[in-house]
Amino acid sequence: MPPPKKPPRARLDVDTRRAQLLALGLEAFAARSYDEVSIDDLARSAGISKGLLFHYFPTKRDFYVATIRGAARALLAATFPADNDDPLERLRTALDAYFDYVEGHAAPYAALIRGGIGSDPEVARVVEDTRAEYIERIRAGLPAPIASTPALRAALRGWLGFVEAVALDWIDHHDVSRASLRELLSQMLVACTTAAASA
Amino acid sequence: MPPPKKPPRARLDVDTRRAQLLALGLEAFAARSYDEVSIDDLARSAGISKGLLFHYFPTKRDFYVATIRGAARALLAATFPADNDDPLERLRTALDAYFDYVEGHAAPYAALIRGGIGSDPEVARVVEDTRAEYIERIRAGLPAPIASTPALRAALRGWLGFVEAVALDWIDHHDVSRASLRELLSQMLVACTTAAASA
Repeated sequence: MPPPKKPPRARLDVDTRRAQLLALGLEAFAARSYDEVSIDDLARSAGISKGLLFHYFPTKRDFYVATIRGAARALLAATFPADNDDPLERLRTALDAYFDYVEGHAAPYAALIRGGIGSDPEVARVVEDTRAEYIERIRAGLPAPIASTPALRAALRGWLGFVEAVALDWIDHHDVSRASLRELLSQMLVACTTAAASA
Repeated sequence: MPPPKKPPRARLDVDTRRAQLLALGLEAFAARSYDEVSIDDLARSAGISKGLLFHYFPTKRDFYVATIRGAARALLAATFPADNDDPLERLRTALDAYFDYVEGHAAPYAALIRGGIGSDPEVARVVEDTRAEYIERIRAGLPAPIASTPALRAALRGWLGFVEAVALDWIDHHDVSRASLRELLSQMLVACTTAAASA
């Protein structure tokens, strides 16, 4: 019996092709600097022409911004809070999921948080929107009078900065247990919301 | 009486000229994206030739990295801890100085912390060195057995992330008093070193 014929690569449907290109792009942009990433190489890896790649993403920068946006969406989706009545347990589960993502996608995570080509306003907006979504999720679990103060917003921004800095430190060192970090981050969130509530 | 003759600008000594160029460059790179900054315009503002500017900084990127390094040094110098036996008072004074710097140099501060053209490894190193110097300063005030653990390093990295995120939030909003933020940040440092000590 002859081996089954491999379907021609161009047969991928639009969504699948787009997802494939985003995954390849994310890997490339996370591993190398923007200038070093070659669109020719990426098209070759995907088995398509450069022209078809530009059909999906008109410019290299569009492609880059789309990969960062994809990473942000994946992070938010992976850490969607579980259905649990205990807010501390919900937080712990979300932090575990956050570190799972960081562990499995260290380079894209670092690229997202460090802002990639930092002066790019669209990328900055993606990163800011991601933080805003996390702040909304935390606020949703807090009593209304506290949740809406500027002091709480500042404290939650600070806490997200804490989480991101600890996650980047963990990528670099891996010398503190994830359980310890999760407890540290949970305690810090409780401490900073309490402090902001009395500010 | 004829007006006093303006001294020719080229008379500035090397250090003064360098400082003048760094100040001009910092302002320009903080206000506009890297690509939008024109070396011709900068040389014109300084009243010197482009050739002389390149004598001080051989390439645009060298110039950019030097301005970021200058901003980092200025921040570290402005926040050098005062001579005070009470560690909490020392911390409060340093945080006041930090926010004075942020208030007086919002654009360069944001450029430094957001990493400017983020994928530039030299700029990333300047930012990392600045954070490492702050961690050393804090560690110097802590008892030796706590000061050297990986858990404390991770916690202090986190706290710096907290400080930076709060400072950027403050630049954007200015709706929380500096005294409240200083207390929040002091409490967070105490909370995270305590948590790390028992991790």
